[in-house]
Amino acid sequence: MTITLNDCRALDERDTLRPLRDHFVLPDGVIYLDGNSLGVLPKNAASRVAEVITKEWGQDLIRAWNSAGWFDLPQRLGDKIALLIGAGPGEVVVTDSTSVNLYKVLSAALNIADQDAPGKKTIVSERSNFPTDLYIAEGLCRERGYQLQLVEAEGILPALNQDAAVLMLTHVNYRTGAMHDMAALTAAAHAAGCLAVWDLAHSAGAVPVDLRGAQADFAVGCSYKYLNGGPGAPAFVWVNPAHADRFHQPLSGWWGHAAPFEFTPDYRPAPGITRYLCGTQPILSLAALECGLDVFGAAQVFGGMPALRAKSLALTDLFITLVEERCDSHGLGLATPRNHSQRGSQVCLTRKEGAYAIVQALIARGVIGDFRAGDGAGHVDILRFGFTPLYIRFEDVWQAVEHLKQVLETAEWKRSEFNQKHAVT
Amino acid sequence: MTITLNDCRALDERDTLRPLRDHFVLPDGVIYLDGNSLGVLPKNAASRVAEVITKEWGQDLIRAWNSAGWFDLPQRLGDKIALLIGAGPGEVVVTDSTSVNLYKVLSAALNIADQDAPGKKTIVSERSNFPTDLYIAEGLCRERGYQLQLVEAEGILPALNQDAAVLMLTHVNYRTGAMHDMAALTAAAHAAGCLAVWDLAHSAGAVPVDLRGAQADFAVGCSYKYLNGGPGAPAFVWVNPAHADRFHQPLSGWWGHAAPFEFTPDYRPAPGITRYLCGTQPILSLAALECGLDVFGAAQVFGGMPALRAKSLALTDLFITLVEERCDSHGLGLATPRNHSQRGSQVCLTRKEGAYAIVQALIARGVIGDFRAGDGAGHVDILRFGFTPLYIRFEDVWQAVEHLKQVLETAEWKRSEFNQKHAVT
Repeated sequence: MTITLNDCRALDERDTLRPLRDHFVLPDGVIYLDGNSLGVLPKNAASRVAEVITKEWGQDLIRAWNSAGWFDLPQRLGDKIALLIGAGPGEVVVTDSTSVNLYKVLSAALNIADQDAPGKKTIVSERSNFPTDLYIAEGLCRERGYQLQLVEAEGILPALNQDAAVLMLTHVNYRTGAMHDMAALTAAAHAAGCLAVWDLAHSAGAVPVDLRGAQADFAVGCSYKYLNGGPGAPAFVWVNPAHADRFHQPLSGWWGHAAPFEFTPDYRPAPGITRYLCGTQPILSLAALECGLDVFGAAQVFGGMPALRAKSLALTDLFITLVEERCDSHGLGLATPRNHSQRGSQVCLTRKEGAYAIVQALIARGVIGDFRAGDGAGHVDILRFGFTPLYIRFEDVWQAVEHLKQVLETAEWKRSEFNQKHAVT
Repeated sequence: MTITLNDCRALDERDTLRPLRDHFVLPDGVIYLDGNSLGVLPKNAASRVAEVITKEWGQDLIRAWNSAGWFDLPQRLGDKIALLIGAGPGEVVVTDSTSVNLYKVLSAALNIADQDAPGKKTIVSERSNFPTDLYIAEGLCRERGYQLQLVEAEGILPALNQDAAVLMLTHVNYRTGAMHDMAALTAAAHAAGCLAVWDLAHSAGAVPVDLRGAQADFAVGCSYKYLNGGPGAPAFVWVNPAHADRFHQPLSGWWGHAAPFEFTPDYRPAPGITRYLCGTQPILSLAALECGLDVFGAAQVFGGMPALRAKSLALTDLFITLVEERCDSHGLGLATPRNHSQRGSQVCLTRKEGAYAIVQALIARGVIGDFRAGDGAGHVDILRFGFTPLYIRFEDVWQAVEHLKQVLETAEWKRSEFNQKHAVT
């Protein structure tokens, strides 16, 4: 018995999270399956940012650093993110980019390794980790006399040997949507005398994360994907309180100083996570991010992250099933694990030919996913679809698969306009 | 013959730059002499950011990276700043914070020094440099086996000896408004086989800067002061083209990659200044900054930076003269050089007692300057007043001094409410 559009509509009727969609602007004629790249606009973000601009900046001017609480935004937003990732209050700050924050925590991790395990000289990571993470690690390895060892997923445990100082992983893979077992891998790392650094770019707000439960050492993450913070909104950083005061990170700027307004010539790091701040942060972008985070506050009434996770799995299950039922003869493969415990909030399809053009044809129809090229190292081209449980409906999944079916059946994707690659996809 | 209010009004009447004030929102009842800390709001910034939020983010979503030109913002805004600092097109990017950018260029400078002058192991800077610059240098020195040598202004030339690898200075001092001779000090540094790194935080948009003319090596600067980019707007970075391709900086993130959308696991730096980008940047804050920069485009019609500099000096001259004429008996000293060639766009006063409270009393009257505490190393408490020639009138200067006179004459500043220090001033 196959699933029908009416079945999907019935699922939406029964969806207790349905009211959360009303917190967002969703363009007409668009089915947005790219919230894992840039989340959608919270309805109140425009008015909130307008208030920051006209009232706080325009009228209060420099006084707004106190009167509008700008100075504490990194910590205030950090506390809101902490609730989503199993961190405690005062343990997270929002600041800089994910790449810059990764540089800070990896540097701190190497400082710990240098001291606690001086013979260990390897950072272990996954070959298909998000490239910027590898670039940051590569640079630090060269500076600090470490080796970056890249392995496939199945090679991670064997790589946690006597040389491994730091295991650096992205929790949910950006290409495949495969999710690691954070607790098990962190435990395995610790058993090998190795620290665990997690990138939560595709996890925060998408899947339940329990950093303290997993006893992770460091974490960074992105706020403009599932947290709907707006284009390029600042990232976040968490450090296990056991490590927070041991070392300070190399980007020792004034916002991470114990007494920033004493303007002393010597650096004295603030206690705890505040020392992971560096320079002044972009307030307009932080204000928009707060609107995205506040939707998660509203979601608490409806069951919070566990309920969002259940819907996310139902959406991705439905997408997989519908693709297999309705597009069966079109050569699509599944790159995302079927096992719930190994799946993030996206589904990635593969196809030997035409993956890029199929994504373009879908975008032209208003079904926005994205394409990620293969890397010639065993990773094939991918059609990537993100399912944000805050605003994606079961009917959206049905319609998306219907469009995919039509694009494939009519060979629409072969039209030349869908086969011209842009610089940015 | 003393200067009168009518004289000041006559100066405003004759001021050819007067129309530029209309580009900004200036709150009623406020004389804003803190544009050197946070510049005022350009009138079109609210509508521009609203467009970015509702149209580009809200409707175009991920497609806006191409359709709205988000991806090229760092370079596009960089080119606008380049015009103000004597840099060429394609030589400047807007990104990250001043502190983070300083870390990048100091790292690159040390890479050059390691290779070209391996025996030189000192970074020379000024003890009264902006503290975050010193914190960043301090951290890098420890990492890289260098010494940070801090001197007073008169000790800079003698410190350019056989040990000096890098001279790192802020062009206009944040406390005193004293301006260095960039060309002469850069030449002296080069004569000693030493690189010159300049922080333009209090220069860009305030005084003419000629990085190429001075043959400077690296520069960073801030966009939310005289460039009116909005609270915490991203900073900028310039590298002399002779150095740009020699090394890449340690924050090697995906936005600085030669082919960022190939997602290859190995870092390959982009040519030129683009390799000084790291992670994704806050688009809302960049959009607001563009509005601030575009006023400088409009100022070209009125004579551009030379005309702005002439007005800035006239404003600061007038302030000094009026303070001396009208507040003579009140124990105020002048920390800012009288010599035009040594003065930025601010005037700093000293007073043995009550500097903090006097600033607070002025703020309560709507005259917004700020206070900077002495550091116990020969630097006394300072009352700091910035004069942004884009929007400050000669009459504003008169009124500010009139308020200062009244605050001193009535001893208003001794009231207890002006003597309670806040965490942030």
